[in-house]
Amino acid sequence: MSFVVVGTFNLDSIETPQETRERIVGGSGTYCCLAASYFTRPQIVGVVGEDFPQEILEHFRNRGVDTRGLEVRPGKTFFWRGRYAEDPNKRTTLATEVNVLKGYRPQIPVEYRDAEILFLANIDPELQEGILSQVRNPKMVAMDSMNFWIRTKPNSLLSVMEKVDVFFANDEEIRMLTGESNLVRAGKQILESGPSVVVLKKGEHGVLLFSEDYVFGIPAYPSEQVVDPTGAGDSFGGGFLGYLDKIQSYGEKDIRIAAVYGSVMASFVIEDFGIEPFKTLSKTQIEDRFVEFQKLVSF
Amino acid sequence: MSFVVVGTFNLDSIETPQETRERIVGGSGTYCCLAASYFTRPQIVGVVGEDFPQEILEHFRNRGVDTRGLEVRPGKTFFWRGRYAEDPNKRTTLATEVNVLKGYRPQIPVEYRDAEILFLANIDPELQEGILSQVRNPKMVAMDSMNFWIRTKPNSLLSVMEKVDVFFANDEEIRMLTGESNLVRAGKQILESGPSVVVLKKGEHGVLLFSEDYVFGIPAYPSEQVVDPTGAGDSFGGGFLGYLDKIQSYGEKDIRIAAVYGSVMASFVIEDFGIEPFKTLSKTQIEDRFVEFQKLVSF
Repeated sequence: MSFVVVGTFNLDSIETPQETRERIVGGSGTYCCLAASYFTRPQIVGVVGEDFPQEILEHFRNRGVDTRGLEVRPGKTFFWRGRYAEDPNKRTTLATEVNVLKGYRPQIPVEYRDAEILFLANIDPELQEGILSQVRNPKMVAMDSMNFWIRTKPNSLLSVMEKVDVFFANDEEIRMLTGESNLVRAGKQILESGPSVVVLKKGEHGVLLFSEDYVFGIPAYPSEQVVDPTGAGDSFGGGFLGYLDKIQSYGEKDIRIAAVYGSVMASFVIEDFGIEPFKTLSKTQIEDRFVEFQKLVSF
Repeated sequence: MSFVVVGTFNLDSIETPQETRERIVGGSGTYCCLAASYFTRPQIVGVVGEDFPQEILEHFRNRGVDTRGLEVRPGKTFFWRGRYAEDPNKRTTLATEVNVLKGYRPQIPVEYRDAEILFLANIDPELQEGILSQVRNPKMVAMDSMNFWIRTKPNSLLSVMEKVDVFFANDEEIRMLTGESNLVRAGKQILESGPSVVVLKKGEHGVLLFSEDYVFGIPAYPSEQVVDPTGAGDSFGGGFLGYLDKIQSYGEKDIRIAAVYGSVMASFVIEDFGIEPFKTLSKTQIEDRFVEFQKLVSF
Protein backbone atom coordinates (compact mmCIF):
# COMPACT_ATOMS: atom_id res chain seq x y z
CA MET A 1 0.00 0.00 0.00
CA SER A 2 1.75 3.11 -1.25
CA PHE A 3 0.26 5.98 -3.19
CA VAL A 4 2.32 8.90 -4.44
CA VAL A 5 0.69 12.13 -5.60
CA VAL A 6 2.64 14.72 -7.56
CA GLY A 7 0.66 17.93 -7.70
CA THR A 8 0.43 21.58 -6.84
CA PHE A 9 0.03 23.10 -3.40
CA ASN A 10 -1.48 26.55 -3.75
CA LEU A 11 -2.85 29.58 -2.09
CA ASP A 12 -6.11 30.40 -3.87
CA SER A 13 -8.37 33.41 -3.84
CA ILE A 14 -11.83 32.29 -4.77
CA GLU A 15 -14.73 34.50 -5.78
CA THR A 16 -18.24 33.09 -5.87
CA PRO A 17 -21.44 35.09 -6.43
CA GLN A 18 -22.07 34.87 -2.67
CA GLU A 19 -18.65 35.34 -1.10
CA THR A 20 -14.92 35.75 -1.67
CA ARG A 21 -12.15 34.00 0.23
CA GLU A 22 -8.59 35.31 0.05
CA ARG A 23 -5.45 33.15 -0.02
CA ILE A 24 -6.89 29.90 1.25
CA VAL A 25 -5.03 26.64 0.80
CA GLY A 26 -5.75 24.72 -2.41
CA GLY A 27 -4.02 22.97 -5.30
CA SER A 28 -4.39 19.59 -6.97
CA GLY A 29 -1.95 17.87 -4.60
CA THR A 30 -3.67 19.31 -1.52
CA TYR A 31 -7.17 18.19 -2.47
CA CYS A 32 -6.02 14.84 -3.76
CA CYS A 33 -3.95 13.89 -0.70
CA LEU A 34 -6.61 14.96 1.78
CA ALA A 35 -9.30 12.97 -0.04
CA ALA A 36 -6.98 9.96 -0.32
CA SER A 37 -6.08 10.19 3.36
CA TYR A 38 -9.46 8.68 4.25
CA PHE A 39 -8.39 5.44 2.54
CA THR A 40 -4.60 5.22 2.64
CA ARG A 41 -1.44 7.13 3.61
CA PRO A 42 -0.65 9.26 0.58
CA GLN A 43 2.89 10.42 -0.09
CA ILE A 44 3.05 13.86 -1.63
CA VAL A 45 5.51 15.52 -3.98
CA GLY A 46 5.46 19.23 -4.63
CA VAL A 47 6.74 22.60 -3.51
CA VAL A 48 5.40 25.42 -1.33
CA GLY A 49 6.77 28.78 -0.26
CA GLU A 50 7.45 30.00 3.24
CA ASP A 51 3.96 31.53 3.39
CA PHE A 52 2.23 28.12 3.17
CA PRO A 53 0.43 27.77 6.53
CA GLN A 54 2.29 25.59 9.00
CA GLU A 55 -0.99 24.37 10.50
CA ILE A 56 -2.02 22.93 7.15
CA LEU A 57 1.20 20.92 6.94
CA GLU A 58 0.39 19.68 10.43
CA HIS A 59 -3.15 18.87 9.32
CA PHE A 60 -1.67 16.84 6.44
CA ARG A 61 0.53 14.88 8.87
CA ASN A 62 -2.31 14.42 11.34
CA ARG A 63 -4.30 12.84 8.54
CA GLY A 64 -1.46 10.41 7.83
CA VAL A 65 -0.06 12.19 4.78
CA ASP A 66 3.66 11.63 4.21
CA THR A 67 5.05 15.11 3.53
CA ARG A 68 8.71 14.19 3.06
CA GLY A 69 8.38 14.91 -0.67
CA LEU A 70 6.96 18.39 -0.15
CA GLU A 71 9.74 20.95 -0.45
CA VAL A 72 9.52 24.27 1.34
CA ARG A 73 11.43 26.88 -0.65
CA PRO A 74 12.25 30.52 0.00
CA GLY A 75 9.63 32.73 -1.61
CA LYS A 76 5.89 32.64 -2.06
CA THR A 77 3.57 29.71 -2.74
CA PHE A 78 1.96 29.31 -6.17
CA PHE A 79 -1.10 31.56 -6.25
CA TRP A 80 -4.34 31.32 -8.22
CA ARG A 81 -7.33 33.63 -8.27
CA GLY A 82 -10.55 32.42 -9.85
CA ARG A 83 -14.16 33.45 -10.13
CA TYR A 84 -17.22 31.23 -10.43
CA ALA A 85 -20.34 32.37 -12.27
CA GLU A 86 -23.86 31.76 -11.00
CA ASP A 87 -23.51 28.45 -12.86
CA PRO A 88 -20.72 26.88 -10.82
CA ASN A 89 -19.49 24.92 -13.84
CA LYS A 90 -18.31 28.25 -15.30
CA ARG A 91 -14.97 29.32 -13.93
CA THR A 92 -12.67 32.16 -14.97
CA THR A 93 -9.02 32.41 -13.98
CA LEU A 94 -8.34 36.01 -12.94
CA ALA A 95 -4.69 35.70 -11.98
CA THR A 96 -1.88 33.22 -11.43
CA GLU A 97 1.50 33.83 -9.78
CA VAL A 98 3.96 31.01 -10.42
CA ASN A 99 6.28 31.98 -7.52
CA VAL A 100 8.19 28.95 -6.10
CA LEU A 101 6.85 26.70 -8.88
CA LYS A 102 9.13 28.56 -11.31
CA GLY A 103 11.87 26.20 -12.42
CA TYR A 104 10.68 23.50 -10.04
CA ARG A 105 11.56 19.95 -11.11
CA PRO A 106 9.71 17.40 -8.98
CA GLN A 107 12.01 14.90 -7.31
CA ILE A 108 10.56 11.67 -5.99
CA PRO A 109 12.19 10.92 -2.60
CA VAL A 110 14.02 7.61 -2.53
CA GLU A 111 11.52 6.34 0.05
CA TYR A 112 8.65 6.82 -2.44
CA ARG A 113 10.19 5.04 -5.41
CA ASP A 114 8.43 1.74 -4.88
CA ALA A 115 5.01 3.40 -5.12
CA GLU A 116 2.29 1.03 -6.24
CA ILE A 117 0.03 3.84 -7.43
CA LEU A 118 1.38 7.08 -8.88
CA PHE A 119 -0.86 10.04 -9.62
CA LEU A 120 0.47 12.73 -11.90
CA ALA A 121 -1.91 15.58 -11.18
CA ASN A 122 -2.19 18.45 -13.63
CA ILE A 123 1.24 19.95 -14.35
CA ASP A 124 3.45 20.47 -17.41
CA PRO A 125 3.48 17.12 -19.27
CA GLU A 126 7.27 17.35 -19.60
CA LEU A 127 7.51 17.28 -15.82
CA GLN A 128 5.05 14.39 -15.71
CA GLU A 129 7.29 12.45 -18.07
CA GLY A 130 10.29 13.18 -15.88
CA ILE A 131 8.52 11.91 -12.78
CA LEU A 132 7.49 8.68 -14.46
CA SER A 133 11.08 7.69 -14.95
CA GLN A 134 11.78 8.10 -11.22
CA VAL A 135 9.28 5.48 -10.02
CA ARG A 136 10.42 1.88 -10.25
CA ASN A 137 7.53 -0.41 -11.00
CA PRO A 138 4.14 1.09 -10.23
CA LYS A 139 1.06 -1.10 -10.58
CA MET A 140 -1.05 1.85 -11.66
CA VAL A 141 -0.18 5.27 -13.02
CA ALA A 142 -2.91 7.90 -13.36
CA MET A 143 -2.72 11.36 -14.85
CA ASP A 144 -4.73 14.52 -15.13
CA SER A 145 -4.12 17.46 -17.43
CA MET A 146 -5.83 20.65 -18.64
CA ASN A 147 -6.80 22.48 -21.83
CA PHE A 148 -3.70 24.69 -21.57
CA TRP A 149 -1.33 21.72 -22.05
CA ILE A 150 -3.53 20.16 -24.74
CA ARG A 151 -3.17 23.41 -26.70
CA THR A 152 0.47 24.20 -26.05
CA LYS A 153 2.20 20.81 -25.63
CA PRO A 154 0.01 18.18 -27.29
CA ASN A 155 2.92 15.94 -28.28
CA SER A 156 4.45 15.88 -24.80
CA LEU A 157 1.01 15.14 -23.41
CA LEU A 158 0.42 12.26 -25.84
CA SER A 159 3.79 10.84 -24.94
CA VAL A 160 2.83 10.69 -21.23
CA MET A 161 -0.61 9.30 -22.06
CA GLU A 162 0.99 6.32 -23.80
CA LYS A 163 2.54 5.32 -20.49
CA VAL A 164 -0.36 5.70 -18.05
CA ASP A 165 -3.18 3.37 -17.01
CA VAL A 166 -5.81 5.90 -15.97
CA PHE A 167 -6.54 9.19 -17.70
CA PHE A 168 -8.74 11.78 -15.98
CA ALA A 169 -10.36 14.47 -18.14
CA ASN A 170 -13.42 16.67 -18.43
CA ASP A 171 -15.77 17.08 -21.43
CA GLU A 172 -13.90 20.00 -22.92
CA GLU A 173 -10.47 18.37 -22.60
CA ILE A 174 -11.53 15.05 -24.08
CA ARG A 175 -13.22 16.77 -27.04
CA MET A 176 -10.20 19.00 -27.60
CA LEU A 177 -7.80 16.07 -27.47
CA THR A 178 -9.72 13.92 -29.93
CA GLY A 179 -11.57 16.45 -32.09
CA GLU A 180 -14.60 14.24 -31.49
CA SER A 181 -17.82 15.83 -30.18
CA ASN A 182 -19.47 12.54 -29.19
CA LEU A 183 -18.14 11.91 -25.69
CA VAL A 184 -18.38 8.12 -25.93
CA ARG A 185 -16.44 7.98 -29.17
CA ALA A 186 -13.96 10.49 -27.71
CA GLY A 187 -13.51 8.37 -24.58
CA LYS A 188 -12.95 5.22 -26.60
CA GLN A 189 -10.49 7.03 -28.84
CA ILE A 190 -8.41 7.95 -25.78
CA LEU A 191 -8.33 4.26 -24.86
CA GLU A 192 -6.48 3.63 -28.11
CA SER A 193 -3.73 6.06 -27.21
CA GLY A 194 -2.56 4.27 -24.09
CA PRO A 195 -4.73 4.37 -20.96
CA SER A 196 -6.80 1.32 -20.10
CA VAL A 197 -9.29 3.44 -18.15
CA VAL A 198 -10.60 6.89 -19.09
CA VAL A 199 -12.46 8.78 -16.39
CA LEU A 200 -14.59 11.57 -17.81
CA LYS A 201 -15.46 14.02 -15.03
CA LYS A 202 -18.60 15.98 -15.90
CA GLY A 203 -19.01 18.08 -12.75
CA GLU A 204 -22.67 18.35 -11.77
CA HIS A 205 -23.48 15.70 -14.39
CA GLY A 206 -21.37 13.02 -12.77
CA VAL A 207 -18.81 10.66 -14.20
CA LEU A 208 -18.49 8.35 -17.21
CA LEU A 209 -15.74 5.77 -17.09
CA PHE A 210 -14.55 3.92 -20.16
CA SER A 211 -12.46 0.81 -20.48
CA GLU A 212 -12.00 -1.76 -23.22
CA ASP A 213 -14.59 -4.06 -21.70
CA TYR A 214 -17.18 -1.89 -20.02
CA VAL A 215 -18.59 1.58 -19.50
CA PHE A 216 -19.57 2.77 -16.05
CA GLY A 217 -21.67 5.86 -15.37
CA ILE A 218 -22.86 7.54 -12.23
CA PRO A 219 -24.67 10.84 -11.68
CA ALA A 220 -23.14 13.42 -9.37
CA TYR A 221 -24.49 13.50 -5.83
CA PRO A 222 -27.56 15.74 -6.03
CA SER A 223 -26.14 18.49 -3.85
CA GLU A 224 -28.19 21.48 -2.76
CA GLN A 225 -25.16 23.12 -1.23
CA VAL A 226 -22.53 23.87 -3.86
CA VAL A 227 -20.40 26.56 -2.23
CA ASP A 228 -17.03 26.21 -3.98
CA PRO A 229 -16.43 23.64 -6.75
CA THR A 230 -12.63 24.09 -6.57
CA GLY A 231 -10.87 20.80 -6.03
CA ALA A 232 -13.81 18.56 -6.93
CA GLY A 233 -11.87 16.79 -9.69
CA ASP A 234 -8.73 16.37 -7.58
CA SER A 235 -10.75 15.10 -4.62
CA PHE A 236 -12.38 12.63 -7.00
CA GLY A 237 -8.93 11.45 -8.04
CA GLY A 238 -7.85 11.16 -4.40
CA GLY A 239 -10.88 9.11 -3.42
CA PHE A 240 -10.65 6.94 -6.55
CA LEU A 241 -6.95 6.12 -6.27
CA GLY A 242 -6.87 6.14 -2.46
CA TYR A 243 -9.57 3.47 -2.39
CA LEU A 244 -7.71 1.33 -4.95
CA ASP A 245 -4.51 1.66 -2.93
CA LYS A 246 -6.40 0.58 0.18
CA ILE A 247 -7.86 -2.56 -1.39
CA GLN A 248 -4.81 -3.39 -3.53
CA SER A 249 -6.94 -4.69 -6.35
CA TYR A 250 -7.66 -3.22 -9.78
CA GLY A 251 -10.45 -5.30 -11.31
CA GLU A 252 -13.60 -4.01 -12.98
CA LYS A 253 -15.69 -4.15 -9.81
CA ASP A 254 -12.91 -2.36 -7.86
CA ILE A 255 -12.69 0.40 -10.46
CA ARG A 256 -16.47 0.92 -10.39
CA ILE A 257 -16.52 1.22 -6.60
CA ALA A 258 -13.47 3.49 -6.72
CA ALA A 259 -15.38 5.83 -9.05
CA VAL A 260 -18.20 6.01 -6.52
CA TYR A 261 -15.78 6.82 -3.67
CA GLY A 262 -14.27 9.46 -5.94
CA SER A 263 -17.74 10.93 -6.46
CA VAL A 264 -18.37 10.82 -2.72
CA MET A 265 -15.20 12.78 -1.95
CA ALA A 266 -15.98 15.34 -4.69
CA SER A 267 -19.50 15.75 -3.32
CA PHE A 268 -18.16 16.72 0.11
CA VAL A 269 -15.42 19.10 -0.94
CA ILE A 270 -17.79 21.40 -2.86
CA GLU A 271 -19.95 21.99 0.22
CA ASP A 272 -17.67 24.68 1.62
CA PHE A 273 -14.66 26.80 0.60
CA GLY A 274 -11.31 25.18 -0.10
CA ILE A 275 -10.40 22.27 2.14
CA GLU A 276 -12.79 23.28 4.93
CA PRO A 277 -14.96 20.15 4.48
CA PHE A 278 -11.94 17.90 5.09
CA LYS A 279 -11.36 19.49 8.48
CA THR A 280 -14.41 17.80 9.97
CA LEU A 281 -15.30 14.99 7.54
CA SER A 282 -15.47 11.52 9.09
CA LYS A 283 -15.21 8.04 7.61
CA THR A 284 -18.78 7.40 8.75
CA GLN A 285 -20.04 10.31 6.67
CA ILE A 286 -18.17 8.88 3.68
CA GLU A 287 -19.73 5.44 4.11
CA ASP A 288 -23.19 7.00 4.60
CA ARG A 289 -22.86 8.93 1.38
CA PHE A 290 -21.65 5.83 -0.45
CA VAL A 291 -24.95 4.22 0.58
CA GLU A 292 -26.81 7.31 -0.64
CA PHE A 293 -25.18 6.80 -4.05
CA GLN A 294 -26.42 3.20 -4.05
CA LYS A 295 -29.95 4.45 -3.39
CA LEU A 296 -29.63 7.25 -5.95
CA VAL A 297 -29.11 4.85 -8.86
CA SER A 298 -31.05 1.84 -7.61
CA PHE A 299 -33.96 0.57 -9.72
CA MET B 1 -54.90 0.32 -18.73
CA SER B 2 -55.53 3.49 -20.68
CA PHE B 3 -53.05 6.17 -21.58
CA VAL B 4 -54.01 9.32 -23.45
CA VAL B 5 -51.41 11.55 -25.09
CA VAL B 6 -52.26 15.05 -26.24
CA GLY B 7 -49.47 16.35 -28.41
CA THR B 8 -48.35 17.61 -31.78
CA PHE B 9 -48.02 15.62 -34.96
CA ASN B 10 -45.58 17.37 -37.26
CA LEU B 11 -43.68 17.33 -40.44
CA ASP B 12 -40.09 18.27 -39.58
CA SER B 13 -37.10 19.26 -41.65
CA ILE B 14 -33.99 18.41 -39.71
CA GLU B 15 -30.48 19.60 -40.44
CA THR B 16 -27.53 17.92 -38.78
CA PRO B 17 -23.85 18.57 -39.56
CA GLN B 18 -23.85 15.30 -41.54
CA GLU B 19 -27.19 15.29 -43.34
CA THR B 20 -30.54 17.00 -43.86
CA ARG B 21 -33.93 15.30 -44.01
CA GLU B 22 -36.93 17.16 -45.43
CA ARG B 23 -40.50 16.92 -44.14
CA ILE B 24 -40.22 13.74 -42.13
CA VAL B 25 -42.84 12.83 -39.55
CA GLY B 26 -42.23 14.09 -36.02
CA GLY B 27 -43.95 15.90 -33.17
CA SER B 28 -44.31 15.28 -29.45
CA GLY B 29 -47.43 13.15 -29.86
CA THR B 30 -45.83 11.02 -32.57
CA TYR B 31 -42.68 10.19 -30.62
CA CYS B 32 -44.54 9.69 -27.37
CA CYS B 33 -47.20 7.34 -28.74
CA LEU B 34 -44.73 5.22 -30.68
CA ALA B 35 -42.46 4.82 -27.64
CA ALA B 36 -45.45 4.05 -25.42
CA SER B 37 -46.80 1.51 -27.92
CA TYR B 38 -44.12 -0.97 -26.78
CA PHE B 39 -45.78 -1.06 -23.35
CA THR B 40 -49.47 -0.22 -23.77
CA ARG B 41 -52.07 0.94 -26.31
CA PRO B 42 -51.81 4.72 -26.30
CA GLN B 43 -54.76 6.87 -27.33
CA ILE B 44 -53.72 10.01 -29.15
CA VAL B 45 -55.28 13.46 -29.41
CA GLY B 46 -54.10 15.98 -31.96
CA VAL B 47 -54.53 17.30 -35.46
CA VAL B 48 -52.81 16.74 -38.79
CA GLY B 49 -53.32 18.13 -42.27
CA GLU B 50 -54.10 16.23 -45.42
CA ASP B 51 -50.39 15.96 -46.21
CA PHE B 52 -49.65 13.77 -43.16
CA PRO B 53 -48.53 10.43 -44.62
CA GLN B 54 -51.25 7.80 -44.64
CA GLU B 55 -48.70 5.04 -44.10
CA ILE B 56 -47.64 6.61 -40.80
CA LEU B 57 -51.23 6.58 -39.58
CA GLU B 58 -51.31 2.91 -40.56
CA HIS B 59 -48.01 2.37 -38.75
CA PHE B 60 -49.58 3.95 -35.64
CA ARG B 61 -52.53 1.57 -35.85
CA ASN B 62 -50.34 -1.43 -36.54
CA ARG B 63 -48.49 -0.64 -33.35
CA GLY B 64 -51.77 -0.60 -31.43
CA VAL B 65 -52.16 3.16 -31.21
CA ASP B 66 -55.77 4.34 -30.95
CA THR B 67 -56.02 7.17 -33.50
CA ARG B 68 -59.69 8.07 -33.01
CA GLY B 69 -58.65 11.31 -31.30
CA LEU B 70 -56.40 12.40 -34.17
CA GLU B 71 -58.29 14.82 -36.39
CA VAL B 72 -57.40 15.16 -40.05
CA ARG B 73 -58.20 18.69 -41.20
CA PRO B 74 -58.07 20.39 -44.58
CA GLY B 75 -54.74 22.14 -44.99
CA LYS B 76 -51.15 21.41 -44.11
CA THR B 77 -49.66 19.70 -41.09
CA PHE B 78 -47.74 21.74 -38.49
CA PHE B 79 -44.19 22.17 -39.78
CA TRP B 80 -40.90 22.69 -37.95
CA ARG B 81 -37.40 23.18 -39.31
CA GLY B 82 -34.45 22.85 -36.96
CA ARG B 83 -30.70 22.63 -37.08
CA TYR B 84 -28.35 20.78 -34.73
CA ALA B 85 -24.83 21.99 -34.09
CA GLU B 86 -21.83 19.67 -33.87
CA ASP B 87 -22.81 19.44 -30.19
CA PRO B 88 -26.20 17.73 -30.57
CA ASN B 89 -27.48 19.40 -27.39
CA LYS B 90 -27.45 22.71 -29.31
CA ARG B 91 -30.54 23.13 -31.46
CA THR B 92 -31.78 26.15 -33.40
CA THR B 93 -35.32 26.53 -34.71
CA LEU B 94 -35.11 27.87 -38.27
CA ALA B 95 -38.81 27.97 -39.13
CA THR B 96 -42.25 26.95 -37.89
CA GLU B 97 -45.53 26.94 -39.84
CA VAL B 98 -48.56 26.58 -37.57
CA ASN B 99 -50.92 25.47 -40.40
CA VAL B 100 -53.77 23.23 -39.13
CA LEU B 101 -52.73 23.81 -35.51
CA LYS B 102 -54.05 27.38 -35.83
CA GLY B 103 -57.15 27.75 -33.71
CA TYR B 104 -57.10 24.04 -32.83
CA ARG B 105 -58.77 23.19 -29.51
CA PRO B 106 -58.03 19.60 -28.52
CA GLN B 107 -61.17 17.57 -27.86
CA ILE B 108 -60.87 14.35 -25.90
CA PRO B 109 -63.10 11.71 -27.53
CA VAL B 110 -65.78 10.35 -25.19
CA GLU B 111 -64.11 6.93 -25.37
CA TYR B 112 -60.89 8.37 -23.89
CA ARG B 113 -62.42 10.20 -20.93
CA ASP B 114 -61.76 7.48 -18.38
CA ALA B 115 -58.01 7.61 -19.09
CA GLU B 116 -55.92 6.46 -16.16
CA ILE B 117 -52.82 8.30 -17.35
CA LEU B 118 -52.98 11.58 -19.23
CA PHE B 119 -49.94 13.15 -20.82
CA LEU B 120 -50.12 16.79 -21.79
CA ALA B 121 -47.17 17.12 -24.12
CA ASN B 122 -45.76 20.54 -24.88
CA ILE B 123 -48.52 22.89 -26.15
CA ASP B 124 -50.02 26.20 -25.04
CA PRO B 125 -50.72 25.85 -21.28
CA GLU B 126 -54.20 27.29 -21.80
CA LEU B 127 -55.00 24.34 -24.05
CA GLN B 128 -53.47 21.98 -21.47
CA GLU B 129 -55.80 23.44 -18.84
CA GLY B 130 -58.78 22.94 -21.16
CA ILE B 131 -57.88 19.28 -21.73
CA LEU B 132 -57.55 18.56 -18.04
CA SER B 133 -61.19 19.42 -17.48
CA GLN B 134 -62.25 16.88 -20.11
CA VAL B 135 -60.76 13.81 -18.40
CA ARG B 136 -62.83 12.36 -15.58
CA ASN B 137 -60.61 10.90 -12.91
CA PRO B 138 -57.09 10.16 -14.09
CA LYS B 139 -54.72 8.39 -11.71
CA MET B 140 -51.74 10.25 -13.09
CA VAL B 141 -51.42 13.45 -15.11
CA ALA B 142 -48.05 14.38 -16.61
CA MET B 143 -47.06 17.51 -18.49
CA ASP B 144 -44.23 18.88 -20.54
CA SER B 145 -43.67 22.48 -21.59
CA MET B 146 -40.98 24.69 -23.13
CA ASN B 147 -39.10 27.93 -22.55
CA PHE B 148 -41.47 29.80 -24.89
CA TRP B 149 -44.47 29.22 -22.61
CA ILE B 150 -42.44 29.88 -19.46
CA ARG B 151 -41.60 33.30 -20.90
CA THR B 152 -44.93 34.23 -22.43
CA LYS B 153 -47.59 32.55 -20.25
CA PRO B 154 -45.99 31.82 -16.86
CA ASN B 155 -49.22 32.19 -14.91
CA SER B 156 -51.19 29.82 -17.15
CA LEU B 157 -48.34 27.36 -16.90
CA LEU B 158 -48.21 27.55 -13.10
CA SER B 159 -51.96 27.01 -12.99
CA VAL B 160 -51.62 23.73 -14.94
CA MET B 161 -48.61 22.67 -12.87
CA GLU B 162 -50.69 22.86 -9.69
CA LYS B 163 -52.92 20.14 -11.09
CA VAL B 164 -50.41 17.60 -12.43
CA ASP B 165 -48.53 14.72 -10.82
CA VAL B 166 -45.47 14.55 -13.07
CA PHE B 167 -43.61 17.50 -14.53
CA PHE B 168 -41.04 16.94 -17.29
CA ALA B 169 -38.46 19.66 -17.91
CA ASN B 170 -34.89 20.24 -19.04
CA ASP B 171 -32.12 22.19 -17.25
CA GLU B 172 -32.87 25.48 -18.93
CA GLU B 173 -36.61 25.29 -18.34
CA ILE B 174 -36.34 24.35 -14.68
CA ARG B 175 -33.83 27.15 -14.04
CA MET B 176 -35.99 29.66 -15.90
CA LEU B 177 -39.11 28.63 -13.99
CA THR B 178 -37.54 28.87 -10.57
CA GLY B 179 -34.77 31.45 -11.00
CA GLU B 180 -32.59 28.91 -9.19
CA SER B 181 -29.28 27.85 -10.77
CA ASN B 182 -28.76 24.81 -8.52
CA LEU B 183 -30.71 22.07 -10.29
CA VAL B 184 -31.48 20.13 -7.12
CA ARG B 185 -32.91 23.17 -5.36
CA ALA B 186 -34.77 24.06 -8.56
CA GLY B 187 -36.25 20.56 -8.81
CA LYS B 188 -37.35 20.59 -5.20
CA GLN B 189 -38.88 24.03 -5.64
CA ILE B 190 -41.04 22.70 -8.49
CA LEU B 191 -42.28 19.98 -6.13
CA GLU B 192 -43.72 22.73 -3.95
CA SER B 193 -45.81 24.11 -6.81
CA GLY B 194 -47.86 20.98 -7.42
CA PRO B 195 -46.21 17.96 -9.06
CA SER B 196 -45.21 15.04 -6.86
CA VAL B 197 -42.54 13.96 -9.34
CA VAL B 198 -40.20 16.21 -11.32
CA VAL B 199 -38.28 14.60 -14.16
CA LEU B 200 -35.28 16.63 -15.21
CA LYS B 201 -34.18 15.54 -18.67
CA LYS B 202 -30.52 16.43 -19.26
CA GLY B 203 -30.00 14.95 -22.74
CA GLU B 204 -26.60 13.30 -23.01
CA HIS B 205 -26.17 13.71 -19.24
CA GLY B 206 -29.16 11.56 -18.38
CA VAL B 207 -32.06 12.12 -16.04
CA LEU B 208 -32.56 13.31 -12.47
CA LEU B 209 -35.91 12.58 -10.90
CA PHE B 210 -37.12 14.34 -7.77
CA SER B 211 -39.94 13.49 -5.42
CA GLU B 212 -40.69 14.38 -1.82
CA ASP B 213 -39.09 11.18 -0.54
CA TYR B 214 -36.26 10.33 -2.89
CA VAL B 215 -34.03 11.42 -5.74
CA PHE B 216 -33.24 9.06 -8.60
CA GLY B 217 -30.51 9.62 -11.14
CA ILE B 218 -29.35 7.71 -14.17
CA PRO B 219 -26.79 8.57 -16.85
CA ALA B 220 -27.85 8.57 -20.48
CA TYR B 221 -27.04 5.45 -22.46
CA PRO B 222 -23.46 5.95 -23.68
CA SER B 223 -24.36 6.13 -27.34
CA GLU B 224 -21.76 6.33 -30.05
CA GLN B 225 -24.39 6.86 -32.71
CA VAL B 226 -26.31 10.09 -32.10
CA VAL B 227 -27.81 10.86 -35.50
CA ASP B 228 -30.86 13.01 -34.66
CA PRO B 229 -31.75 13.95 -31.06
CA THR B 230 -35.26 15.12 -32.06
CA GLY B 231 -37.95 13.39 -30.04
CA ALA B 232 -35.65 12.05 -27.31
CA GLY B 233 -37.58 13.82 -24.55
CA ASP B 234 -40.97 12.79 -25.92
CA SER B 235 -39.83 9.21 -26.38
CA PHE B 236 -38.63 9.28 -22.79
CA GLY B 237 -42.10 10.42 -21.73
CA GLY B 238 -43.72 7.69 -23.83
CA GLY B 239 -41.55 4.96 -22.36
CA PHE B 240 -41.92 6.31 -18.82
CA LEU B 241 -45.71 6.67 -18.86
CA GLY B 242 -46.33 3.69 -21.15
CA TYR B 243 -44.51 1.43 -18.70
CA LEU B 244 -46.51 2.80 -15.74
CA ASP B 245 -49.75 2.28 -17.65
CA LYS B 246 -48.70 -1.29 -18.39
CA ILE B 247 -47.96 -2.18 -14.78
CA GLN B 248 -50.78 -0.08 -13.27
CA SER B 249 -48.71 0.85 -10.26
CA TYR B 250 -47.12 4.16 -9.29
CA GLY B 251 -44.84 3.46 -6.32
CA GLU B 252 -41.25 4.59 -5.91
CA LYS B 253 -39.77 1.42 -7.39
CA ASP B 254 -42.17 1.64 -10.37
CA ILE B 255 -41.25 5.26 -11.03
CA ARG B 256 -37.52 4.44 -10.94
CA ILE B 257 -37.94 1.58 -13.42
CA ALA B 258 -40.17 3.77 -15.59
CA ALA B 259 -37.39 6.36 -15.77
CA VAL B 260 -35.01 3.67 -17.02
CA TYR B 261 -37.48 2.54 -19.70
CA GLY B 262 -37.87 6.19 -20.65
CA SER B 263 -34.10 6.43 -21.01
CA VAL B 264 -34.06 3.24 -23.06
CA MET B 265 -36.63 4.58 -25.52
CA ALA B 266 -34.80 7.92 -25.80
CA SER B 267 -31.53 6.08 -26.45
CA PHE B 268 -33.02 4.27 -29.44
CA VAL B 269 -34.81 7.18 -31.09
CA ILE B 270 -31.64 9.28 -31.44
CA GLU B 271 -29.87 6.56 -33.42
CA ASP B 272 -31.50 7.57 -36.70
CA PHE B 273 -33.61 10.38 -38.18
CA GLY B 274 -37.14 11.00 -36.96
CA ILE B 275 -39.14 7.88 -36.14
CA GLU B 276 -36.98 5.55 -38.25
CA PRO B 277 -35.73 3.60 -35.21
CA PHE B 278 -39.30 2.72 -34.22
CA LYS B 279 -39.91 1.07 -37.59
CA THR B 280 -37.70 -1.87 -36.69
CA LEU B 281 -37.28 -1.74 -32.90
CA SER B 282 -38.30 -4.90 -31.05
CA LYS B 283 -39.31 -5.56 -27.46
CA THR B 284 -36.27 -7.80 -27.12
CA GLN B 285 -33.96 -4.93 -28.01
CA ILE B 286 -35.70 -2.82 -25.37
CA GLU B 287 -35.23 -5.47 -22.68
CA ASP B 288 -31.60 -5.97 -23.72
CA ARG B 289 -30.89 -2.28 -23.38
CA PHE B 290 -32.65 -2.20 -20.00
CA VAL B 291 -30.12 -4.81 -18.87
CA GLU B 292 -27.32 -2.68 -20.32
CA PHE B 293 -28.52 0.20 -18.12
CA GLN B 294 -28.34 -2.10 -15.11
CA LYS B 295 -24.74 -2.92 -15.98
CA LEU B 296 -23.90 0.70 -16.70
CA VAL B 297 -24.65 1.85 -13.14
CA SER B 298 -23.82 -1.31 -11.23
CA PHE B 299 -21.10 -1.17 -8.56
